[in-house]
Amino acid sequence: MIFYDYWRSSAAFRVRICLSLKGLSVERRFVSLLRGEQMGAVYRSKNPQALVPALELDDGSVLTQSLAIIEYLESAFPRPALIPADPILAARARAVALSIACDIHPLGNLRVAEYLGRELQLGHDRVAAWRRHWIASGMTALEAMIAPAPFCLGAEPTIADACLAPQIYSAERFGVSLAAFPRIRAVAEVYAAHPAIVAAHPSAQPDAAQTAPAP
Amino acid sequence: MIFYDYWRSSAAFRVRICLSLKGLSVERRFVSLLRGEQMGAVYRSKNPQALVPALELDDGSVLTQSLAIIEYLESAFPRPALIPADPILAARARAVALSIACDIHPLGNLRVAEYLGRELQLGHDRVAAWRRHWIASGMTALEAMIAPAPFCLGAEPTIADACLAPQIYSAERFGVSLAAFPRIRAVAEVYAAHPAIVAAHPSAQPDAAQTAPAP
Repeated sequence: MIFYDYWRSSAAFRVRICLSLKGLSVERRFVSLLRGEQMGAVYRSKNPQALVPALELDDGSVLTQSLAIIEYLESAFPRPALIPADPILAARARAVALSIACDIHPLGNLRVAEYLGRELQLGHDRVAAWRRHWIASGMTALEAMIAPAPFCLGAEPTIADACLAPQIYSAERFGVSLAAFPRIRAVAEVYAAHPAIVAAHPSAQPDAAQTAPAP
Repeated sequence: MIFYDYWRSSAAFRVRICLSLKGLSVERRFVSLLRGEQMGAVYRSKNPQALVPALELDDGSVLTQSLAIIEYLESAFPRPALIPADPILAARARAVALSIACDIHPLGNLRVAEYLGRELQLGHDRVAAWRRHWIASGMTALEAMIAPAPFCLGAEPTIADACLAPQIYSAERFGVSLAAFPRIRAVAEVYAAHPAIVAAHPSAQPDAAQTAPAP
Protein backbone atom coordinates (compact mmCIF):
# COMPACT_ATOMS: atom_id res chain seq x y z
CA MET A 1 0.00 0.00 0.00
CA ILE A 2 1.18 3.51 -0.84
CA PHE A 3 0.10 6.27 1.52
CA TYR A 4 0.01 9.85 0.20
CA ASP A 5 0.79 11.95 3.21
CA TYR A 6 1.60 15.46 4.40
CA TRP A 7 2.95 16.01 7.88
CA ARG A 8 0.64 18.86 8.89
CA SER A 9 -2.57 17.56 7.34
CA SER A 10 -5.05 16.75 10.12
CA ALA A 11 -6.75 14.23 7.86
CA ALA A 12 -3.47 12.45 7.07
CA PHE A 13 -2.58 12.49 10.79
CA ARG A 14 -5.85 10.61 11.52
CA VAL A 15 -4.94 7.82 9.13
CA ARG A 16 -1.33 7.71 10.41
CA ILE A 17 -2.70 7.11 13.91
CA CYS A 18 -4.81 4.20 12.69
CA LEU A 19 -1.96 2.69 10.69
CA SER A 20 0.23 3.03 13.75
CA LEU A 21 -2.33 1.54 16.16
CA LYS A 22 -2.85 -1.41 13.83
CA GLY A 23 0.89 -1.86 13.35
CA LEU A 24 0.68 -1.54 9.56
CA SER A 25 3.59 -0.37 7.49
CA VAL A 26 3.03 1.39 4.19
CA GLU A 27 5.17 2.94 1.50
CA ARG A 28 4.87 6.68 1.92
CA ARG A 29 4.83 9.45 -0.66
CA PHE A 30 4.87 12.99 0.60
CA VAL A 31 2.63 15.54 -1.10
CA SER A 32 3.73 19.00 -0.06
CA LEU A 33 0.68 21.21 0.43
CA LEU A 34 3.13 24.03 0.98
CA ARG A 35 4.42 23.68 -2.56
CA GLY A 36 0.94 22.96 -3.96
CA GLU A 37 1.87 19.45 -5.06
CA GLN A 38 -1.70 18.27 -4.40
CA MET A 39 -2.82 20.36 -7.40
CA GLY A 40 -0.52 18.55 -9.86
CA ALA A 41 -2.08 16.50 -12.65
CA VAL A 42 -0.54 13.22 -11.47
CA TYR A 43 -1.90 13.53 -7.95
CA ARG A 44 -5.29 14.80 -9.12
CA SER A 45 -5.62 11.76 -11.36
CA LYS A 46 -5.42 9.73 -8.16
CA ASN A 47 -7.55 12.06 -6.01
CA PRO A 48 -9.85 14.42 -7.93
CA GLN A 49 -10.41 16.37 -4.71
CA ALA A 50 -6.73 17.35 -4.65
CA LEU A 51 -6.63 16.74 -0.92
CA VAL A 52 -4.46 14.47 1.19
CA PRO A 53 -4.47 11.74 2.32
CA ALA A 54 -4.99 8.97 -0.22
CA LEU A 55 -4.21 5.27 0.04
CA GLU A 56 -3.25 3.32 -3.06
CA LEU A 57 -3.87 -0.39 -2.72
CA ASP A 58 -1.76 -3.10 -4.29
CA ASP A 59 -4.38 -3.59 -7.05
CA GLY A 60 -4.07 0.07 -8.01
CA SER A 61 -7.34 1.23 -6.39
CA VAL A 62 -6.95 4.63 -4.76
CA LEU A 63 -8.98 5.32 -1.65
CA THR A 64 -9.64 8.89 -0.54
CA GLN A 65 -11.24 10.67 2.42
CA SER A 66 -9.57 9.90 5.72
CA LEU A 67 -12.62 8.37 7.39
CA ALA A 68 -13.37 6.15 4.40
CA ILE A 69 -9.75 4.99 4.46
CA ILE A 70 -10.02 4.25 8.18
CA GLU A 71 -13.24 2.25 7.65
CA TYR A 72 -11.43 0.29 4.92
CA LEU A 73 -8.47 -0.42 7.20
CA GLU A 74 -10.93 -1.55 9.85
CA SER A 75 -12.47 -4.14 7.53
CA ALA A 76 -9.16 -5.28 6.01
CA PHE A 77 -7.16 -5.31 9.25
CA PRO A 78 -9.73 -5.71 12.02
CA ARG A 79 -7.32 -6.00 14.97
CA PRO A 80 -7.05 -3.99 17.11
CA ALA A 81 -10.58 -2.75 16.50
CA LEU A 82 -10.88 1.02 16.20
CA ILE A 83 -14.66 0.98 15.82
CA PRO A 84 -16.57 -0.59 18.72
CA ALA A 85 -18.49 -3.79 17.97
CA ASP A 86 -21.60 -2.48 19.74
CA PRO A 87 -23.63 -0.51 17.17
CA ILE A 88 -24.60 2.28 19.58
CA LEU A 89 -21.02 2.73 20.80
CA ALA A 90 -19.87 2.61 17.17
CA ALA A 91 -22.33 5.40 16.35
CA ARG A 92 -20.98 7.47 19.22
CA ALA A 93 -17.39 6.97 18.11
CA ARG A 94 -18.27 7.85 14.51
CA ALA A 95 -20.23 10.90 15.65
CA VAL A 96 -17.20 12.26 17.51
CA ALA A 97 -15.05 11.59 14.45
CA LEU A 98 -17.55 13.21 12.09
CA SER A 99 -18.15 16.23 14.31
CA ILE A 100 -14.44 16.94 13.86
CA ALA A 101 -14.09 15.86 10.23
CA CYS A 102 -17.24 17.65 9.05
CA ASP A 103 -17.89 20.51 11.42
CA ILE A 104 -14.48 21.72 12.60
CA HIS A 105 -11.62 20.75 10.33
CA PRO A 106 -12.95 21.75 6.86
CA LEU A 107 -13.73 25.28 8.03
CA GLY A 108 -10.13 25.99 8.95
CA ASN A 109 -8.13 24.09 6.40
CA LEU A 110 -5.66 25.57 3.97
CA ARG A 111 -7.90 26.05 0.94
CA VAL A 112 -10.52 27.84 3.03
CA ALA A 113 -7.97 30.09 4.73
CA GLU A 114 -6.60 30.95 1.29
CA TYR A 115 -10.09 31.84 -0.01
CA LEU A 116 -10.73 34.07 3.00
CA GLY A 117 -7.46 35.89 2.44
CA ARG A 118 -7.35 36.06 -1.32
CA GLU A 119 -10.99 36.31 -2.38
CA LEU A 120 -12.51 38.00 0.64
CA GLN A 121 -9.44 40.11 1.45
CA LEU A 122 -9.54 39.27 5.11
CA GLY A 123 -6.35 40.04 6.97
CA HIS A 124 -4.35 37.51 8.95
CA ASP A 125 -6.01 38.41 12.25
CA ARG A 126 -9.54 37.87 10.98
CA VAL A 127 -8.61 34.57 9.31
CA ALA A 128 -7.04 33.49 12.60
CA ALA A 129 -10.17 34.56 14.51
CA TRP A 130 -12.34 32.60 12.04
CA ARG A 131 -10.27 29.47 12.61
CA ARG A 132 -10.36 29.88 16.39
CA HIS A 133 -14.12 30.45 16.37
CA TRP A 134 -14.93 27.14 14.67
CA ILE A 135 -12.37 25.17 16.65
CA ALA A 136 -13.64 26.57 19.96
CA SER A 137 -17.32 26.07 19.17
CA GLY A 138 -16.65 22.55 17.91
CA MET A 139 -14.61 21.70 20.99
CA THR A 140 -17.38 22.97 23.26
CA ALA A 141 -19.65 20.34 21.73
CA LEU A 142 -16.92 17.69 21.83
CA GLU A 143 -16.38 18.28 25.52
CA ALA A 144 -20.00 17.15 26.05
CA MET A 145 -19.70 14.20 23.65
CA ILE A 146 -16.68 12.42 25.13
CA ALA A 147 -16.18 10.59 28.43
CA PRO A 148 -12.46 9.94 28.94
CA ALA A 149 -11.80 6.50 30.36
CA PRO A 150 -8.95 7.25 29.57
CA PHE A 151 -9.49 7.45 25.78
CA CYS A 152 -12.41 9.43 24.31
CA LEU A 153 -15.04 6.79 24.81
CA GLY A 154 -13.42 3.97 26.75
CA ALA A 155 -10.37 1.95 27.65
CA GLU A 156 -9.05 1.60 24.11
CA PRO A 157 -8.47 4.15 21.35
CA THR A 158 -11.09 4.37 18.60
CA ILE A 159 -11.72 6.30 15.42
CA ALA A 160 -12.84 9.13 17.73
CA ASP A 161 -9.34 9.41 19.21
CA ALA A 162 -7.79 9.18 15.75
CA CYS A 163 -9.69 12.37 14.92
CA LEU A 164 -9.44 14.15 18.26
CA ALA A 165 -5.64 13.93 18.60
CA PRO A 166 -5.10 15.86 15.32
CA GLN A 167 -7.82 18.33 16.29
CA ILE A 168 -6.02 19.03 19.57
CA TYR A 169 -2.77 19.59 17.65
CA SER A 170 -4.61 22.00 15.39
CA ALA A 171 -6.18 23.84 18.33
CA GLU A 172 -2.76 24.35 19.88
CA ARG A 173 -1.30 25.42 16.55
CA PHE A 174 -3.97 28.06 16.01
CA GLY A 175 -3.98 29.36 19.57
CA VAL A 176 -7.20 27.92 20.99
CA SER A 177 -6.86 27.41 24.73
CA LEU A 178 -7.98 24.07 26.12
CA ALA A 179 -8.56 25.64 29.55
CA ALA A 180 -12.35 25.35 29.27
CA PHE A 181 -12.20 21.72 28.18
CA PRO A 182 -11.03 19.48 31.04
CA ARG A 183 -12.08 16.25 29.34
CA ILE A 184 -10.23 17.15 26.17
CA ARG A 185 -7.18 18.11 28.25
CA ALA A 186 -7.32 14.73 29.97
CA VAL A 187 -7.28 12.79 26.70
CA ALA A 188 -4.59 15.11 25.32
CA GLU A 189 -2.33 13.93 28.14
CA VAL A 190 -3.10 10.31 27.32
CA TYR A 191 -2.28 10.88 23.66
CA ALA A 192 0.99 12.60 24.49
CA ALA A 193 2.13 9.47 26.33
CA HIS A 194 0.87 6.89 23.84
CA PRO A 195 3.69 5.60 21.61
CA ALA A 196 1.56 4.81 18.55
CA ILE A 197 -0.05 8.25 18.60
CA VAL A 198 3.24 10.00 19.28
CA ALA A 199 4.78 8.18 16.29
CA ALA A 200 2.03 9.59 14.06
CA HIS A 201 2.45 13.18 15.28
CA PRO A 202 3.32 15.79 12.64
CA SER A 203 6.57 16.68 14.36
CA ALA A 204 7.76 13.07 14.00
CA GLN A 205 7.26 12.86 10.22
CA PRO A 206 10.15 12.86 7.73
CA ASP A 207 8.64 15.72 5.71
CA ALA A 208 8.30 17.94 8.80
CA ALA A 209 11.78 19.32 8.14
CA GLN A 210 10.37 21.81 5.66
CA THR A 211 11.23 25.19 7.04
CA ALA A 212 9.15 27.51 4.86
CA PRO A 213 6.24 29.39 6.51
CA ALA A 214 3.44 27.17 7.74
CA PRO A 215 0.57 26.80 5.27
CA MET B 1 -37.28 5.67 17.20
CA ILE B 2 -37.71 9.44 17.24
CA PHE B 3 -36.15 11.37 14.38
CA TYR B 4 -35.31 15.05 14.89
CA ASP B 5 -35.74 16.58 11.49
CA TYR B 6 -35.87 19.84 9.56
CA TRP B 7 -37.14 19.89 6.00
CA ARG B 8 -34.34 21.95 4.48
CA SER B 9 -31.41 20.40 6.34
CA SER B 10 -29.20 18.54 3.86
CA ALA B 11 -28.00 16.26 6.64
CA ALA B 12 -31.55 15.38 7.72
CA PHE B 13 -32.51 14.81 4.07
CA ARG B 14 -29.68 12.21 3.81
CA VAL B 15 -31.09 10.23 6.72
CA ARG B 16 -34.67 10.57 5.42
CA ILE B 17 -33.52 8.98 2.16
CA CYS B 18 -31.99 6.03 4.01
CA LEU B 19 -35.05 5.57 6.24
CA SER B 20 -37.21 5.69 3.13
CA LEU B 21 -35.05 3.25 1.14
CA LYS B 22 -35.08 0.82 4.07
CA GLY B 23 -38.82 1.24 4.55
CA LEU B 24 -38.46 2.30 8.18
CA SER B 25 -41.04 4.43 9.89
CA VAL B 26 -40.05 6.72 12.74
CA GLU B 27 -41.78 9.19 14.99
CA ARG B 28 -40.75 12.62 13.79
CA ARG B 29 -40.11 15.82 15.71
CA PHE B 30 -39.46 18.94 13.74
CA VAL B 31 -36.72 21.29 14.91
CA SER B 32 -37.12 24.61 13.13
CA LEU B 33 -33.71 26.00 12.27
CA LEU B 34 -35.54 29.08 11.06
CA ARG B 35 -36.80 29.74 14.57
CA GLY B 36 -33.51 28.66 16.17
CA GLU B 37 -35.11 25.73 17.98
CA GLN B 38 -31.86 23.74 17.66
CA MET B 39 -30.29 26.16 20.16
CA GLY B 40 -32.85 25.39 22.90
CA ALA B 41 -31.67 23.70 26.08
CA VAL B 42 -33.86 20.63 25.60
CA TYR B 43 -32.55 19.92 22.12
CA ARG B 44 -28.97 20.70 23.07
CA SER B 45 -29.19 18.22 25.91
CA LYS B 46 -29.84 15.62 23.21
CA ASN B 47 -27.34 16.97 20.69
CA PRO B 48 -24.57 19.19 22.10
CA GLN B 49 -23.69 20.25 18.57
CA ALA B 50 -27.11 21.93 18.22
CA LEU B 51 -27.43 20.56 14.69
CA VAL B 52 -30.05 18.38 13.05
CA PRO B 53 -30.59 15.53 12.54
CA ALA B 54 -30.58 13.31 15.61
CA LEU B 55 -32.09 9.87 16.13
CA GLU B 56 -33.36 8.86 19.55
CA LEU B 57 -33.49 5.11 20.01
CA ASP B 58 -36.06 3.26 22.09
CA ASP B 59 -33.54 2.85 24.94
CA GLY B 60 -33.10 6.65 25.09
CA SER B 61 -29.71 6.75 23.33
CA VAL B 62 -29.45 9.73 21.02
CA LEU B 63 -27.39 9.32 17.87
CA THR B 64 -26.05 12.37 16.06
CA GLN B 65 -24.20 13.12 12.82
CA SER B 66 -26.06 12.02 9.71
CA LEU B 67 -23.40 9.59 8.47
CA ALA B 68 -23.04 7.95 11.90
CA ILE B 69 -26.84 7.56 12.00
CA ILE B 70 -26.80 5.99 8.52
CA GLU B 71 -24.03 3.56 9.54
CA TYR B 72 -26.14 2.63 12.59
CA LEU B 73 -29.23 2.06 10.44
CA GLU B 74 -27.10 -0.09 8.14
CA SER B 75 -26.05 -2.37 11.01
CA ALA B 76 -29.48 -2.47 12.67
CA PHE B 77 -31.52 -2.80 9.45
CA PRO B 78 -29.15 -4.28 6.89
CA ARG B 79 -31.63 -4.72 4.01
CA PRO B 80 -31.55 -3.19 1.50
CA ALA B 81 -27.82 -2.58 1.90
CA LEU B 82 -26.77 1.05 1.41
CA ILE B 83 -23.07 0.31 1.87
CA PRO B 84 -21.57 -2.19 -0.59
CA ALA B 85 -20.32 -5.47 0.87
CA ASP B 86 -17.04 -5.22 -1.06
CA PRO B 87 -14.60 -3.18 1.07
CA ILE B 88 -13.16 -1.21 -1.86
CA LEU B 89 -16.60 -0.33 -3.23
CA ALA B 90 -17.67 0.55 0.31
CA ALA B 91 -14.68 2.89 0.58
CA ARG B 92 -15.64 4.55 -2.71
CA ALA B 93 -19.25 5.02 -1.58
CA ARG B 94 -18.14 6.45 1.76
CA ALA B 95 -15.62 8.74 0.04
CA VAL B 96 -18.36 10.26 -2.13
CA ALA B 97 -20.55 10.69 0.95
CA LEU B 98 -17.71 12.23 2.96
CA SER B 99 -16.57 14.53 0.17
CA ILE B 100 -20.05 16.05 0.38
CA ALA B 101 -20.53 15.86 4.14
CA CYS B 102 -17.06 17.19 4.99
CA ASP B 103 -15.90 19.30 2.09
CA ILE B 104 -19.03 20.89 0.60
CA HIS B 105 -21.97 21.02 2.96
CA PRO B 106 -20.39 22.44 6.16
CA LEU B 107 -18.94 25.41 4.29
CA GLY B 108 -22.36 26.62 3.18
CA ASN B 109 -24.62 25.72 6.02
CA LEU B 110 -26.70 28.15 8.03
CA ARG B 111 -24.33 28.80 10.94
CA VAL B 112 -21.45 29.55 8.57
CA ALA B 113 -23.56 31.85 6.38
CA GLU B 114 -24.64 33.68 9.54
CA TYR B 115 -21.03 34.12 10.68
CA LEU B 116 -20.01 35.47 7.28
CA GLY B 117 -22.84 37.99 7.37
CA ARG B 118 -22.84 38.98 11.02
CA GLU B 119 -19.19 38.72 12.08
CA LEU B 120 -17.44 39.40 8.79
CA GLN B 121 -20.05 41.85 7.50
CA LEU B 122 -20.20 40.24 4.09
CA GLY B 123 -23.21 41.23 2.05
CA HIS B 124 -25.72 38.80 0.60
CA ASP B 125 -23.99 38.61 -2.78
CA ARG B 126 -20.62 37.67 -1.34
CA VAL B 127 -22.13 35.06 0.95
CA ALA B 128 -23.97 33.63 -2.06
CA ALA B 129 -20.72 33.61 -4.08
CA TRP B 130 -18.95 31.84 -1.20
CA ARG B 131 -21.62 29.13 -1.15
CA ARG B 132 -21.52 28.72 -4.93
CA HIS B 133 -17.71 28.51 -4.93
CA TRP B 134 -17.55 25.55 -2.55
CA ILE B 135 -20.49 23.75 -4.14
CA ALA B 136 -19.04 24.14 -7.65
CA SER B 137 -15.52 23.09 -6.68
CA GLY B 138 -16.85 20.13 -4.72
CA MET B 139 -19.08 19.05 -7.58
CA THR B 140 -16.17 19.24 -10.01
CA ALA B 141 -14.43 16.59 -7.92
CA LEU B 142 -17.63 14.59 -7.50
CA GLU B 143 -18.13 14.48 -11.26
CA ALA B 144 -14.83 12.55 -11.45
CA MET B 145 -15.66 10.31 -8.48
CA ILE B 146 -19.00 8.89 -9.63
CA ALA B 147 -19.92 6.53 -12.47
CA PRO B 148 -23.71 6.55 -12.90
CA ALA B 149 -25.10 3.08 -13.57
CA PRO B 150 -27.71 4.51 -13.03
CA PHE B 151 -27.04 5.42 -9.35
CA CYS B 152 -23.77 7.05 -8.29
CA LEU B 153 -21.72 3.89 -8.15
CA GLY B 154 -23.91 1.10 -9.46
CA ALA B 155 -27.32 -0.40 -9.98
CA GLU B 156 -28.61 0.28 -6.48
CA PRO B 157 -28.62 3.42 -4.35
CA THR B 158 -25.96 3.68 -1.65
CA ILE B 159 -24.88 6.09 1.06
CA ALA B 160 -23.27 8.07 -1.78
CA ASP B 161 -26.66 8.72 -3.35
CA ALA B 162 -28.16 9.55 0.03
CA CYS B 163 -25.63 12.39 0.21
CA LEU B 164 -25.60 13.45 -3.43
CA ALA B 165 -29.36 13.92 -3.80
CA PRO B 166 -29.45 16.57 -1.03
CA GLN B 167 -26.31 18.19 -2.44
CA ILE B 168 -27.99 18.51 -5.84
CA TYR B 169 -31.03 20.10 -4.14
CA SER B 170 -28.70 22.52 -2.41
CA ALA B 171 -26.84 23.35 -5.65
CA GLU B 172 -30.14 24.21 -7.33
CA ARG B 173 -31.29 26.21 -4.33
CA PHE B 174 -28.13 28.32 -4.31
CA GLY B 175 -27.93 28.82 -8.07
CA VAL B 176 -25.09 26.49 -9.07
CA SER B 177 -25.63 25.27 -12.62
CA LEU B 178 -25.22 21.57 -13.26
CA ALA B 179 -24.41 22.22 -16.92
CA ALA B 180 -20.76 21.25 -16.53
CA PHE B 181 -21.60 18.04 -14.68
CA PRO B 182 -23.25 15.51 -17.03
CA ARG B 183 -22.82 12.58 -14.65
CA ILE B 184 -24.40 14.49 -11.79
CA ARG B 185 -27.25 15.58 -14.08
CA ALA B 186 -27.81 11.93 -15.04
CA VAL B 187 -28.17 10.78 -11.44
CA ALA B 188 -30.31 13.83 -10.64
CA GLU B 189 -32.84 12.56 -13.19
CA VAL B 190 -32.77 9.11 -11.61
CA TYR B 191 -33.38 10.60 -8.16
CA ALA B 192 -36.27 12.73 -9.43
CA ALA B 193 -38.05 9.57 -10.58
CA HIS B 194 -37.26 7.37 -7.56
CA PRO B 195 -40.25 7.16 -5.19
CA ALA B 196 -38.24 6.65 -1.97
CA ILE B 197 -35.98 9.61 -2.72
CA VAL B 198 -38.88 11.80 -3.82
CA ALA B 199 -40.68 10.99 -0.56
CA ALA B 200 -37.66 12.26 1.39
CA HIS B 201 -37.37 15.52 -0.58
CA PRO B 202 -37.64 18.75 1.41
CA SER B 203 -40.70 19.89 -0.51
CA ALA B 204 -42.58 16.76 0.58
CA GLN B 205 -42.05 17.26 4.32
CA PRO B 206 -44.82 18.37 6.68
CA ASP B 207 -42.72 21.23 8.10
CA ALA B 208 -42.01 22.63 4.61
CA ALA B 209 -45.14 24.76 4.91
CA GLN B 210 -43.21 27.41 6.84
CA THR B 211 -43.45 30.53 4.75
CA ALA B 212 -40.90 32.78 6.45
CA PRO B 213 -37.73 33.67 4.50
CA ALA B 214 -35.44 30.73 3.83
CA PRO B 215 -32.59 30.36 6.32
